[in-house]
Amino acid sequence: MIPRYSRPDMVAIWSPETKFRIWYEIEAHACDAQADLGVIPRENAEAVWKAKDVAFDVARIDEIEAETKHDVIAFLTHLAEHVGSEEARFVHQGMTSSDVLDTCFNVQLVRASDILIEDMKALLAALKTRAFEHKDTIRIGRSHGIHAEPTTMGLTFARFYAEMDRNLNRLEKARYEIATGAISGAVGTFANIDPAVEEHVCKKMGLEIEPISTQVIPRDRHAAFFAALGVVASSIENVATEIRHMQRTEVLEAAEFFSMGQKGSSAMPHKKNPVLTENLTGLARLVRMTVVPAMENVALWHERDISHSSVERNIGPDATITLDFALARLTSVIDRLLVYPDNMMANMNKFPGLVMSQRVLLALTQAGVSREDAYRMVQRNALKVWETGCDFKEELLADDDVVKALGTDGIEEKFDLGYHTKHVDTIFKRVFGDV
Amino acid sequence: MIPRYSRPDMVAIWSPETKFRIWYEIEAHACDAQADLGVIPRENAEAVWKAKDVAFDVARIDEIEAETKHDVIAFLTHLAEHVGSEEARFVHQGMTSSDVLDTCFNVQLVRASDILIEDMKALLAALKTRAFEHKDTIRIGRSHGIHAEPTTMGLTFARFYAEMDRNLNRLEKARYEIATGAISGAVGTFANIDPAVEEHVCKKMGLEIEPISTQVIPRDRHAAFFAALGVVASSIENVATEIRHMQRTEVLEAAEFFSMGQKGSSAMPHKKNPVLTENLTGLARLVRMTVVPAMENVALWHERDISHSSVERNIGPDATITLDFALARLTSVIDRLLVYPDNMMANMNKFPGLVMSQRVLLALTQAGVSREDAYRMVQRNALKVWETGCDFKEELLADDDVVKALGTDGIEEKFDLGYHTKHVDTIFKRVFGDV
Amino acid sequence: MIPRYSRPDMVAIWSPETKFRIWYEIEAHACDAQADLGVIPRENAEAVWKAKDVAFDVARIDEIEAETKHDVIAFLTHLAEHVGSEEARFVHQGMTSSDVLDTCFNVQLVRASDILIEDMKALLAALKTRAFEHKDTIRIGRSHGIHAEPTTMGLTFARFYAEMDRNLNRLEKARYEIATGAISGAVGTFANIDPAVEEHVCKKMGLEIEPISTQVIPRDRHAAFFAALGVVASSIENVATEIRHMQRTEVLEAAEFFSMGQKGSSAMPHKKNPVLTENLTGLARLVRMTVVPAMENVALWHERDISHSSVERNIGPDATITLDFALARLTSVIDRLLVYPDNMMANMNKFPGLVMSQRVLLALTQAGVSREDAYRMVQRNALKVWETGCDFKEELLADDDVVKALGTDGIEEKFDLGYHTKHVDTIFKRVFGDV
Amino acid sequence: MIPRYSRPDMVAIWSPETKFRIWYEIEAHACDAQADLGVIPRENAEAVWKAKDVAFDVARIDEIEAETKHDVIAFLTHLAEHVGSEEARFVHQGMTSSDVLDTCFNVQLVRASDILIEDMKALLAALKTRAFEHKDTIRIGRSHGIHAEPTTMGLTFARFYAEMDRNLNRLEKARYEIATGAISGAVGTFANIDPAVEEHVCKKMGLEIEPISTQVIPRDRHAAFFAALGVVASSIENVATEIRHMQRTEVLEAAEFFSMGQKGSSAMPHKKNPVLTENLTGLARLVRMTVVPAMENVALWHERDISHSSVERNIGPDATITLDFALARLTSVIDRLLVYPDNMMANMNKFPGLVMSQRVLLALTQAGVSREDAYRMVQRNALKVWETGCDFKEELLADDDVVKALGTDGIEEKFDLGYHTKHVDTIFKRVFGDV
Repeated sequence: MIPRYSRPDMVAIWSPETKFRIWYEIEAHACDAQADLGVIPRENAEAVWKAKDVAFDVARIDEIEAETKHDVIAFLTHLAEHVGSEEARFVHQGMTSSDVLDTCFNVQLVRASDILIEDMKALLAALKTRAFEHKDTIRIGRSHGIHAEPTTMGLTFARFYAEMDRNLNRLEKARYEIATGAISGAVGTFANIDPAVEEHVCKKMGLEIEPISTQVIPRDRHAAFFAALGVVASSIENVATEIRHMQRTEVLEAAEFFSMGQKGSSAMPHKKNPVLTENLTGLARLVRMTVVPAMENVALWHERDISHSSVERNIGPDATITLDFALARLTSVIDRLLVYPDNMMANMNKFPGLVMSQRVLLALTQAGVSREDAYRMVQRNALKVWETGCDFKEELLADDDVVKALGTDGIEEKFDLGYHTKHVDTIFKRVFGDV
Repeated sequence: MIPRYSRPDMVAIWSPETKFRIWYEIEAHACDAQADLGVIPRENAEAVWKAKDVAFDVARIDEIEAETKHDVIAFLTHLAEHVGSEEARFVHQGMTSSDVLDTCFNVQLVRASDILIEDMKALLAALKTRAFEHKDTIRIGRSHGIHAEPTTMGLTFARFYAEMDRNLNRLEKARYEIATGAISGAVGTFANIDPAVEEHVCKKMGLEIEPISTQVIPRDRHAAFFAALGVVASSIENVATEIRHMQRTEVLEAAEFFSMGQKGSSAMPHKKNPVLTENLTGLARLVRMTVVPAMENVALWHERDISHSSVERNIGPDATITLDFALARLTSVIDRLLVYPDNMMANMNKFPGLVMSQRVLLALTQAGVSREDAYRMVQRNALKVWETGCDFKEELLADDDVVKALGTDGIEEKFDLGYHTKHVDTIFKRVFGDV
Repeated sequence: MIPRYSRPDMVAIWSPETKFRIWYEIEAHACDAQADLGVIPRENAEAVWKAKDVAFDVARIDEIEAETKHDVIAFLTHLAEHVGSEEARFVHQGMTSSDVLDTCFNVQLVRASDILIEDMKALLAALKTRAFEHKDTIRIGRSHGIHAEPTTMGLTFARFYAEMDRNLNRLEKARYEIATGAISGAVGTFANIDPAVEEHVCKKMGLEIEPISTQVIPRDRHAAFFAALGVVASSIENVATEIRHMQRTEVLEAAEFFSMGQKGSSAMPHKKNPVLTENLTGLARLVRMTVVPAMENVALWHERDISHSSVERNIGPDATITLDFALARLTSVIDRLLVYPDNMMANMNKFPGLVMSQRVLLALTQAGVSREDAYRMVQRNALKVWETGCDFKEELLADDDVVKALGTDGIEEKFDLGYHTKHVDTIFKRVFGDV
Repeated sequence: MIPRYSRPDMVAIWSPETKFRIWYEIEAHACDAQADLGVIPRENAEAVWKAKDVAFDVARIDEIEAETKHDVIAFLTHLAEHVGSEEARFVHQGMTSSDVLDTCFNVQLVRASDILIEDMKALLAALKTRAFEHKDTIRIGRSHGIHAEPTTMGLTFARFYAEMDRNLNRLEKARYEIATGAISGAVGTFANIDPAVEEHVCKKMGLEIEPISTQVIPRDRHAAFFAALGVVASSIENVATEIRHMQRTEVLEAAEFFSMGQKGSSAMPHKKNPVLTENLTGLARLVRMTVVPAMENVALWHERDISHSSVERNIGPDATITLDFALARLTSVIDRLLVYPDNMMANMNKFPGLVMSQRVLLALTQAGVSREDAYRMVQRNALKVWETGCDFKEELLADDDVVKALGTDGIEEKFDLGYHTKHVDTIFKRVFGDV
C-alpha cells in the first residue's frame, strides 16, 4: 500500500486499532455464548464488556508480542490488563488463534467490500449523468483505432455504466463469498467449543457461519474475492484507456479536468497530460497482480498451513485500498471530464464523409448494382477524398453512375447522422431502464 | 490443448465443424428476423434453411479463406454454394463479422459451461458418497503438516464437497456472465440492423441480449468467466494436494486406485505413485494461467481492437478442455480412492496418545491447576513419549499429580475419540442438509 | 498452439517424429558410452545405429503406448522392432525415463532457442535498416500521448533496436540456461549408470552436463527460460503498441503495409486496420502467461513430482511457437511499414509552433526575464495559438516584450528543428557503433 | 511491504531520505558537468555541494509538494533553501524530472541488488557447510513422494547450492540489467542538455549510460529484473517445500531449529511447526506476483506514459524488501536446521529392503533370467514385505530361485548402500569444484 494512493476510511479498516477492536468483539461475543451454554460463568462473560470503550494500546500489545512471539496471546494478555486477569481467565477458551484471525480478516474484507460497493455506486451515478448529458453527442466510433461508423459519447458512457453495473454485481457476490466466520477449533471439529458459539459470534459480527472449516476458513472464498477485484480493476483500465486515447493531442475529444487559469498548463496549453487515467492504468495492474497469489493460497496442506498468511497480510490491505482509491479517482475523472463535441465532429470529418463509404456501398448493392460495379463506384470517389481531402458526398453527387443508382436524395440520406443514432434511446432503455 | 488431457465432448465444441454450424444457425435465424421485419424477402430467409442438415466442408472453407483472407466471408461463400448464391444474397445483411464471431464464441462458452457444470455435479456426487462412507473414519488432523487433533476422513471429503459446491455456484454464475449475444453492427449502434434481429437470434441460440455492445461483446464478462475457472482449478489443486500427501510412503492413508495384480506395481508394491493427482496439480496451473490474459483483454481500444482474438482462440478451448478433463479425472480419483483406515490410526498413534497433550493441559487448568504446574505435568510425560515411544495415557495414569488433579476416569476420558467426533453429524447436516 | 499462429520449422521441433528421433539419439549415444565402459557389448551398441535412418512410426508407438501406458517403454519396444529385440536388449540400461525425457526437452528448447535467436537477428536487421532510413525524419515526441518535443522516426526504430538487442542477449542467456542434459538415474545418484555416459550423451547432443540433478533437471532453469521469453514478448507488445498508435486515423504517421490496389481497402481507404500489430499484442499475452506456471513448476516435491510435465507439454511448444511466429510477423511489419513523414510534420504543427513553447520559456528565463514574466509572455501567445490555430512563432515575433528579450533571430532560432536532432548521430553511434 | 517481513538495510534504500539524497547527488553531479561544459557558472555548481552533509527535511519537502503538486520541484525548492536560491538557480537546468527519477530508481535497484547478492552468498555458504556435513548421511530419495532409491542429505543441500548459485548469477545479471542512468531530456534527444552530463552523472553514480532513452529508461530492463527476482523466489519456495516435507510428523527427517527447553513446544513436543518455511512459501508468492505487472509496464505509449510509476512505487520496494528478508530467513533456517539421520534410516526401512526391489529385478535380468520370471521372483517376495513388514533381503535369501540366479553374495551386494553413494564425491566436485 502506498499512502499517496489511499483513502483514510479504507486504510482505517486495516489499522491495528481496528483489528484489535474486532478481535475484542469476537472474544467478547464468544464469552457471551459460552455463558449461555453454561460453559463459563456469566459474570466472567460480562466482565469482558468492561473493555467495551477501551482503545487498545497497540504499542503495548506489540511489546508483549515481542516477548510471547504470538499476536493473539499478546492481545489477550493486554485485554486482561483491562478486564482483570481473574475475570478474563475464560476468554478465548476452547478457541484457536485462527478462529479469531480468520473471522477478523473476513470482517475486514466485508467492511472493505461495503466501501467498494459504495464507491462503485458513486461511479455509476457519475457515468449515468454524463451518459445522459452526452446521449446525442455525435462521435466517430473506432475499431482498431480507425474510424468506423458514428456513435455517440453517451453510448460510450453508457457502456461503461453497464460494465460497472456488472462489476457492482460482482462486488456484491465477492462480499458474499467472504462473509463467513468460523469458531471451530484446531482442526474444525468443534471438539473444544460448541457450534453455538460460532453461530452467536457470526450473527453478532454480521457474518454467516462457515458450514465446514478446518483450522481455517477455506481459501477458495478469498481467491474468488480477489479475482472479482481483478475484474473490476481491468474495467477501470478499460475506461482509463478510453480517456487516455481521447486526450491525445491529435484526438482531443475529451480531457481530464484542469482549470485553464492554472499556472504551467496555460503556458503550454497543449500539454495537459492524462496523468490520472495513466495512474489508474498502473493501479489496475497492482490490483490484478493479487489474483494469482490468492489462487495459489487455496491449496493449503491438510487442515492448514500458514503460507497464505504473509500473502494476505499484504494483498488484503493493498488490493482493497488501491481499488478504493482507484474507483474514487475514476469517479472524479468522469464527473469532471472535459468533453469537446466540436473536436469530435472535426475528427469524424477528417476525410469528409468517408466514414459513410460502407453505407453507400451497401446502398448501391441494395439498389441492384452488382458488387463489383458498386465497389468501383465507391472506390473512385473514396480515393479522391483520401488523397485530396475533398468531400465524399459532393463527389458522389457529381458521379452520374451513383446518382443514377441512388438518386440525389438517396445520396443525401446516406449522410444523415440520424441513421446512426436512431436506436440510442432503445439502448439507453436497455441499460438504464425507464427513467 | 493437449490431446492426452482432453475429452471428446468438450473438444467437439471447439471443432471447426461446430463453429460453422453455430455460425450457420446465427445467420439463418437472423434472416428469419429480417424477413419478419420485412427487410429481406421471406423466401430468401427460408432458402437458408435448405442447408439445415449440411455438414459444412471445413477444407473447402479453409480454401476460400486462403483466398479471401476473411473467415466469415469464406463461410458465407461456402454457404452460398449450398443455398444458391441468388437465394443467399441477403445472408449476413447489415451484420458485421463480430456479430457472428462473438455470439458464436459465447454459445461455445455456454455449452462448455454446461459440460463443466455436469462435471462438477458428478464430482460432488463422488465426494458425497465417500464422505458418508468415511464419516466416522478417524484420522489425525494436521496443521503445518504436523499432527494436531483427530478429525475424520469424512470431514475431509465433506469440506471438499462444500468447496466444490461453491465452485458449482461459481460455474453457474460464470455461465451467466457469458450467456449473451450481440447483433449490433460495426460499432454497436444498430445503424444497419434492427435490434429485433438481435433479440430473435439470441432467443433462438439460448442467450440473453447484450444490453449494450460495441463492435464486440464487452470482455469484462470473459475475464469474469476465466477467473471463475481459475478458482475451480485452484480447488482441484487443493484436493489433489491432499491426496498426494496421503499417498506418501510414510503416510499412506490413501492411494489412487490401482489393481494389485498390475504388472509393474506388484513387483514394487511400495512404488505406487500419485501420478493422477500430480497431473491435476499441473493442469490446475494451466487453467489458472489463462486468468491474467483474459483480464488484460478487457481494455480494448475504443469500439474494439482485435488483440483479444488470438488470446481467446487459445484460452477458450484450452481452459475449458483442460478443466473438463481435470474435473473428470478428479471424479474418477475420488470414486476409486483407496482409503486405509488402519494406517490412519497407526499414524495418529506414532507417538501414542501425544496428540491429546493439549487437551490434557486444558483439563488440568480447568481442574484448577495453575498454568505453570499444568505445563510441567504435561511436559515431563510428553517428553518421555517423544523420546521413548511409550504411551502417553499410561504415563499420565502413573503420574500421581495428574491422577490427583484429573482422576483416573478423568484421564481416560481425555483419550476418548468420541470427544472429537461428537459434532460430525452437525457439520454433515450443515454441508449436506437433511439426508 | 494455434496453427494459424505458427511456422513450420518451430512446429517441427515439437512433432512426435522429432521427439522420437532425439530419444533415439540419446539412447544410441548412451549405448556407445556404455560399450566404451565395457558395461554392454560393443556389438549391441553398434546394432542400435542400424535404425539411424529410420523414420519412427508414431502411430505404431502410440499403439504400443496405449497398451503399456508408458511412452518411453513404447518407444523402446518399437525401437527393438527395428534393431532386433536381442540386439536391443541393453538399450536404456541403467537409465530412468526422465533421463531421456528431460534431456530431450532441453534439446528441443535449445533448438527452439536457436530459431528464436535467428528470428531476433532478422528483426534487428529490419529495425536497423529502417532506423537509418528515417534517422532524420522529424516526428513529434510524445509523453502521455501529448506532444512534447521533436524527435525522429529513426530514433524510434533505434530504441526498438536497442531493446531487441538486449532481448537477443536475453535469449542467448535463456538458451544457456536450459542447454544441459542429465543421465543420472532414478534419484540422480548415478547408482546404475556411470557419469561418463551422461558426459558422452550431452557432448553428442550439444548440451552441457547438469552438474547435479535428481530424477529431473532442476526447473529453475526452465523458469528462467520462460521468463526471458516473457520479457521478449513484452517488448514485442511495446513495438506493436507504437505502431498501433501511429496508424490511428487521426495520427496516421505509419501503417502496416497493404497495397492500395487491394479490393476492400480501396473502397474504404481510411479503413486500413493495424491488425497485425493488434494480433502481436494478443500473442504477447499468450507468451507472457507461461511465465507464472513455469515458476510454479520449480518447487517439485523431493527428487521430483510430475506436476511440471503437463504444464511443459503445453507451454514448451506454445510459448516457443507463438514467439517465433510473433517475431517473424513483427519483422515483416517493420520491413514493410509504410511511413508518412508529411503526416508527421503536419501532426507536429497541429498547433503551429506550440511544441516550442517550453523552449521559448526556458530561453526567456535564461535571457534574464523573471520566471513570472516569462510565463505571462509565453502564455498570452500560446493561448492564442491554442484557441485560433495561428502560428506561435509569428505571434512571438509580433510581441514586443518577447522580441526585446530574445531578438528576432533569437526567436527564429528557437524554432530550428536542428536543435532537437543535433545529437542523433551520437545516439546512433551508441546504439549501432561505428557503421 | 510489511514491516514484519523486512530488514532495515533494505528498507533504508527505499526511504524518502535516501531517495532525496540520491536526487541531490544526481543534481549536484549534473551541475559539475554543466560547469565543465561551460553551460553554467562553476561557482553555482560548487555552491550546490554546500548541501553535501544536509539531511533533507522530508516533512518540509512534502509540505512544498502539497502546494506545487510536483515532487521534483518540491525537492529543488527545498534544496534552494539550503544552497540559496540565487546560487541554486541553475540546478536541474535542461533536465526533465524523469532524468532524476529514473536514474534514482536504478541507483536504488542497484543497491538493492548488492544486498540481495550478499544475501545469496550467505545462503550459499550455509548450504555448502550443511552439504559437506551431511555428504554421506543416507536418506531415501523420493519421486512422487514415494520412496525410490537411496541418496544423501548432502546431495539435497548440494543441489540447492547449485540452484542458488545459478540464482546468484541471475541476480548479478539482473543488477547489470538495471545499472543504467539517463539524463537525456523530455524525449531523449539531449536537445537541452549535452550527453556529457549524462556520462558524468552515470559514472559518479556507478551506472552505465543508457545508450538510447526516451523520457524514460526502457522498461524491458525492469521487467527482466523483476523476472529474475521471481525465479529466485521460486527457488526459495523449492527449498522451503523440501523442509516442510521433511518436518512432517510422519517423516521428521529434519526440523526448523527450536530449543527443546522452550515453553510451549516442550509440552507438545510433536507440535513443532515449520512456520518459517511456510512463511517463505508465502513470501515467494509475493515476490513472484510482481513479475507480470513489471512486464505489463514495458509497453509504455510513445516516449513515455506514467502508468508504470504507481506500479514501481509498489513493487520496487516490496519485491526487494521481501526477497531480502526471505533470503536471510532461509539462510538462518539452513544454518540451524535440525537433521535427524536416524529417522532418515528408519523411514528408508519402513518396508525393510523394499527400495532395493528394482535393483534386484535388474540384477536378475542381467543374470540371464527372463523378464517375466524375474518379475515373478521379485513380486512374490516384495508382496510379503509389503503385507507383513518382513525383511526383503531375508526373503530373497530364502528363495531358492533367487539364490540360484544371484548367489548369496550377489543378493547381499544388492543391499549395499555404498552402491548408491559411490558417485557422491564426483557430484560434489562438479558442484563445489576442488575443495
